[in-house]
Amino acid sequence: MFLGTQRVNNQGHLEIGGCDTLALAQQFGTPLYVMDEAFLRENIRRYRAAFAQKYPGESHISYAGKAFLVKRVAQIVAEEGIDLDVASGGELFVALSAGFPAERILFHGNYKSDREIQEGVAAGVGRFVVDNPHELSRLAQVAQGAGIVQKILLRVTPGIDPHTHAKISTGQEDSKFGVSIQSGEALAAVKLALASPSLKFLGIHCHIGSQLLDAQTHLDAGDVMVGFLAQIQRETGFSCEELDIGGGLGVRYLPEHAPLSFEDFAEALTGALLAAFERHGVTALPRLLQEPGRSLVAEAGTTLYTVGPLKTVQLAEKTKTYAVVDGGLSDNPRPALYGAKYSALVAGRASQPKDKSYTVSGKHCETDLLFPDMPLGEVTSGDILAVQTTGAYNQTMASNYNRFPRPAVVFVRDGEVSLAVQRESYEDLVRQEF
Amino acid sequence: MFLGTQRVNNQGHLEIGGCDTLALAQQFGTPLYVMDEAFLRENIRRYRAAFAQKYPGESHISYAGKAFLVKRVAQIVAEEGIDLDVASGGELFVALSAGFPAERILFHGNYKSDREIQEGVAAGVGRFVVDNPHELSRLAQVAQGAGIVQKILLRVTPGIDPHTHAKISTGQEDSKFGVSIQSGEALAAVKLALASPSLKFLGIHCHIGSQLLDAQTHLDAGDVMVGFLAQIQRETGFSCEELDIGGGLGVRYLPEHAPLSFEDFAEALTGALLAAFERHGVTALPRLLQEPGRSLVAEAGTTLYTVGPLKTVQLAEKTKTYAVVDGGLSDNPRPALYGAKYSALVAGRASQPKDKSYTVSGKHCETDLLFPDMPLGEVTSGDILAVQTTGAYNQTMASNYNRFPRPAVVFVRDGEVSLAVQRESYEDLVRQEF
Repeated sequence: MFLGTQRVNNQGHLEIGGCDTLALAQQFGTPLYVMDEAFLRENIRRYRAAFAQKYPGESHISYAGKAFLVKRVAQIVAEEGIDLDVASGGELFVALSAGFPAERILFHGNYKSDREIQEGVAAGVGRFVVDNPHELSRLAQVAQGAGIVQKILLRVTPGIDPHTHAKISTGQEDSKFGVSIQSGEALAAVKLALASPSLKFLGIHCHIGSQLLDAQTHLDAGDVMVGFLAQIQRETGFSCEELDIGGGLGVRYLPEHAPLSFEDFAEALTGALLAAFERHGVTALPRLLQEPGRSLVAEAGTTLYTVGPLKTVQLAEKTKTYAVVDGGLSDNPRPALYGAKYSALVAGRASQPKDKSYTVSGKHCETDLLFPDMPLGEVTSGDILAVQTTGAYNQTMASNYNRFPRPAVVFVRDGEVSLAVQRESYEDLVRQEF
Repeated sequence: MFLGTQRVNNQGHLEIGGCDTLALAQQFGTPLYVMDEAFLRENIRRYRAAFAQKYPGESHISYAGKAFLVKRVAQIVAEEGIDLDVASGGELFVALSAGFPAERILFHGNYKSDREIQEGVAAGVGRFVVDNPHELSRLAQVAQGAGIVQKILLRVTPGIDPHTHAKISTGQEDSKFGVSIQSGEALAAVKLALASPSLKFLGIHCHIGSQLLDAQTHLDAGDVMVGFLAQIQRETGFSCEELDIGGGLGVRYLPEHAPLSFEDFAEALTGALLAAFERHGVTALPRLLQEPGRSLVAEAGTTLYTVGPLKTVQLAEKTKTYAVVDGGLSDNPRPALYGAKYSALVAGRASQPKDKSYTVSGKHCETDLLFPDMPLGEVTSGDILAVQTTGAYNQTMASNYNRFPRPAVVFVRDGEVSLAVQRESYEDLVRQEF
């Protein structure tokens, strides 16, 4: 499995963005997050183009920053001309630090603090995605105090079970997020929003889950959402301008993962929405908003590790070889959190057959099992291991567990490498301490 | 369940170290890690005294810094006169920054980098706990180069299954840690160590797992370890000076958890070891080393959160109320990682009956379920929630996920509060970025 610009160069090394990964490891040390900039940009363009082509109304793509948001990513997203989701005051700060235009920011979150609401209003964010009536009334007050009319979407729960990992299922009735359509709370919140002079209610938002490999859940949710659009129109006379169906499209962590292409997804979703508009009698096409995060950025990321000790244990049933890498839980908590699986290559022999498997563990002072039974082929101490599809929910979830300094992030493109995040030093670890 | 100096003051508020937790939340903001200094010191003294009293030979306690190591903790451990385990170059740096005496440091880790080995040797750490033959030979070289004789212990796997959570089980045969006694690799490594002129082999170490609520696994491991001491003596003539049986004693996360007291644990373990010495014919009592981490520090920590939105959902089978707090996965990943359970109090009404339960979620932009079905009594938005037993594996595993600034840490004692770790600012989030 080679993703984006990954290829094997004439020395047999894995190359990304025209850069030799062994040279990157040598220059920047390991662990190292390597981002394939051209691939990220291409994903953004393809996702946007797919919906621009299929959806007959206006469509907007907003990158879900929670997947991976450093200033460099915000700059790229800004340059590509799509919008940006932030999920906290911190993400908002990162975006604004990168010069991201506030009017193209959607401010998410199920518990925005008073400070965060004030920061968002003061910055002039394009839309608040309001989670609940409590937030609605606080936001209305802050907007009024600031003398502005704040544009908002309302997050609703369509009551759909996405059949993905429970920790990343968010659209079902039993959720901390949003207001329920079924219970009538969503309609009550819409009425409240419409009656608030300091708020401009634009439409409704849902997010149903993550890493979905087919479109079915989105189609189901789309139908419920369009039904609710129609209900709003019937009961309030208000015709929603925007319909935001969140993100959730899956990516390739393993060769056998076959997520829908952006184009097929756009076709399936658009078709289902148009049918639903007709069925529910919605005549004015709303602007369609999409919030992909993982599907734009995950496959563009690769983590380089240096392999240390190899250890073979004789068990009753089999022989097992541990390959220990110089990172772990602190730079990629997803295996421990979600049982997430990954693919990897030995960077220095990138085309060798993967005829031997290893238990790849991290160097933390606990089990720190990263990748059980990972096919790699021959591995020796000192090899560079390239773990693929680490662009989402890795760097952003990284910790200093066992006081490991967090890795650097480099962006590679056309043979050029650019440092986006500097590796932490030991001194950085105690910067906040007395 | 009240732990350490926790009590209810005459305003009905939870007090820790003589400080009102509502006042702490007000002064330092939330989330806030509050450390009960007197309780931590008392735990260290009691643990040490228990073994000093029971074990007829010399006994040493070494605090396992991986549980929670900031400079302040290292200073307290130094003042209390016990030793310190570090598990990385970063932890070593923190300890040395705090002025911790290097000769009282044990350097752990299953994959020490060349840099880490050099740093440990240069600092003059008291003992390297060598994990594998690869490390042994690299360490011998570095020590020789530095012109010193480095004292070491050897980490062995006793082949014991501790029946605790798989992610924190470390003593079984199938482990990335240590060399196997059963396979003969451990004895071979001992011989190698004894033959290295730049290494002084002192004895053997094992660590069998964490959060063990009874002593049985320790007793089983002790027997295996003593058997190996005897084997070393028989086969090499060398009488080990030190026996390190690691840590692993459990703590009270829930009222129904009833871990052994330090005193009962000391009695049980000492009794078993003495019996094993006799049975295996070990006549010279080794120094007994212990490495408690969680059992010293976990119960001394409390996290304060501010409750935000409360949300009731009507499900087919029941009504469920979500209480969302202003932290989550980023300040306490243990529920998501290990399914860990916790107890909590409403800090402002600390003696109210816990006759109502909530689903406590964090504010991250994913499910971020912290405490399902947690009995709390009445909770309203704005309440301060005090989650107990967060002193271990919380701050040290904290991330900036969703770009949340990491919380402050305060130490409280005798009505005085002292800031040990300052809350991160938004600016801190982008300090490493370009």
